[in-house]
Amino acid sequence: MKSLAYYNGCFCELDEMYIPLNDRGFFFGDGVYEAVYCYNKKIFALDEHLTRFFESIKAMQINLEINYAELKSLIERMVGKVKDERLLVYWQATRGTARRNHSFDRSMKANLCITVRHGELRDMTNPIKVITAPDLRHGYCNIKTLNLLPNVLAFQNAEEQGKQEVIFHRSGRITECAHSNVSILKNGELLTPPSDNMILAGIGRAHLMETCRDLGITVKEQEFYLPDLFAADEIILTAAGSLCISVGEIDGKKTGGKDNVLLSRIRSKLIKEFCDYCCCKESEIYERKQGGN
Amino acid sequence: MKSLAYYNGCFCELDEMYIPLNDRGFFFGDGVYEAVYCYNKKIFALDEHLTRFFESIKAMQINLEINYAELKSLIERMVGKVKDERLLVYWQATRGTARRNHSFDRSMKANLCITVRHGELRDMTNPIKVITAPDLRHGYCNIKTLNLLPNVLAFQNAEEQGKQEVIFHRSGRITECAHSNVSILKNGELLTPPSDNMILAGIGRAHLMETCRDLGITVKEQEFYLPDLFAADEIILTAAGSLCISVGEIDGKKTGGKDNVLLSRIRSKLIKEFCDYCCCKESEIYERKQGGN
Repeated sequence: MKSLAYYNGCFCELDEMYIPLNDRGFFFGDGVYEAVYCYNKKIFALDEHLTRFFESIKAMQINLEINYAELKSLIERMVGKVKDERLLVYWQATRGTARRNHSFDRSMKANLCITVRHGELRDMTNPIKVITAPDLRHGYCNIKTLNLLPNVLAFQNAEEQGKQEVIFHRSGRITECAHSNVSILKNGELLTPPSDNMILAGIGRAHLMETCRDLGITVKEQEFYLPDLFAADEIILTAAGSLCISVGEIDGKKTGGKDNVLLSRIRSKLIKEFCDYCCCKESEIYERKQGGN
Repeated sequence: MKSLAYYNGCFCELDEMYIPLNDRGFFFGDGVYEAVYCYNKKIFALDEHLTRFFESIKAMQINLEINYAELKSLIERMVGKVKDERLLVYWQATRGTARRNHSFDRSMKANLCITVRHGELRDMTNPIKVITAPDLRHGYCNIKTLNLLPNVLAFQNAEEQGKQEVIFHRSGRITECAHSNVSILKNGELLTPPSDNMILAGIGRAHLMETCRDLGITVKEQEFYLPDLFAADEIILTAAGSLCISVGEIDGKKTGGKDNVLLSRIRSKLIKEFCDYCCCKESEIYERKQGGN
């Protein structure tokens, strides 16, 4: 199969899967999700994403019947069925199926959806261009929920301006991006916003922090502001699909590029970690680079 | 039929309708909605809700192919097919169907969903009990979007405390409730929060304001705060399903009840407006009151 979808025990091609209209995900965005990349059938950081998923489930008090080991096994089996060496694996649980009503029966059984399809890491070779925008998201950003409309609108706006991401701020205080975390290098140290309810404690961010510590770089979880972005030596975005992307332009102004040696050391180590786990070479990360489709 | 659902040209019983997994409503809550009540096949305030719906569609830049007159006609035909004298009519448009990706093709065609099922206005006879909570919603509350998780969580919390609604505030400034607007009577005047991006300009709220003006009551759209709630002569909640409900207790403290004469005049006029339009008597609004199911 070229893609595979799962919903509550049923399997089929992703584009052919149907779900009940009354799934609360459809009316309220009442659910949580995760996404991971899988190269050569090796799913990178799966345990970390599963752990966070079950934390989200608990925080949202969703009754998922499947347990950690069962979900892991199901995802691994699905990955094995899709004939593609570069995959994006996505899964989400919604609170359940019922006629639309804000309140819910606590015994309601969750709906589980998993999709497996072609997917590649983002190109990390060159610095990207981004914009900034006020963070208009809700106050549950520490949980990976389906309430993503502000992210969608801001990211679309960035793309339509020819940019690749948007960095959010609350009254000037940097939070994160539409679908990545943001950190900065300054005077040889890594600064990343503290993990409160304004940001998701990203797994890519955790790998970045760990890698920096391994390299002897001081890591500080502390608030920083718009002017700090522009004054940073390097600006680094992280996500499941972008291990370490630097930002070369923000709101039309040139940024970063002042500590390329340190940036390169960090990025190389993060890419090596991924490639070692997934049994691939750095030159094999991006299909397009090899003249593929 | 006892209920009826529509999705992109297909009709069936509500609980039997299926939609594509790739509907962007399911992954992002990327859509907008409306809900109205229909008694005796007369849909109350339908034009006002349709007007707001098309404003939401425009604000979210969703490409809905059906126009106002066609949607109105479709809703009216559906209502005619359900054998029930008290109906809740709900409809929503999501941005379209595509594999999950934050950004979207602007030419994407929207998905339209309509549901018709039994529904009754809320009992307005007695004051209700509510709680207050910090407003953790996003910054697009002026648009009726599907990103409703903070509303769901707050309302569930209220219900589990045996209360009937939750009044949100941002740093003490009152915004609205989980699914109603809140206004207060003080010294014979109506105060209601101004319609900025923190509240939905409710149609029930508009009817309340108009009714007050008709009764010679001064209406002020102005900010008020938590202490003003507790000091109010009456606290009034409005929504499509609750024309005028007063609040007798907030966070365990007795509230309102200081201008019942004015409150009763307002409520009677609002109920009369509904009953006149829907050709029913006030005694017929609630089925339960007549010993029904």
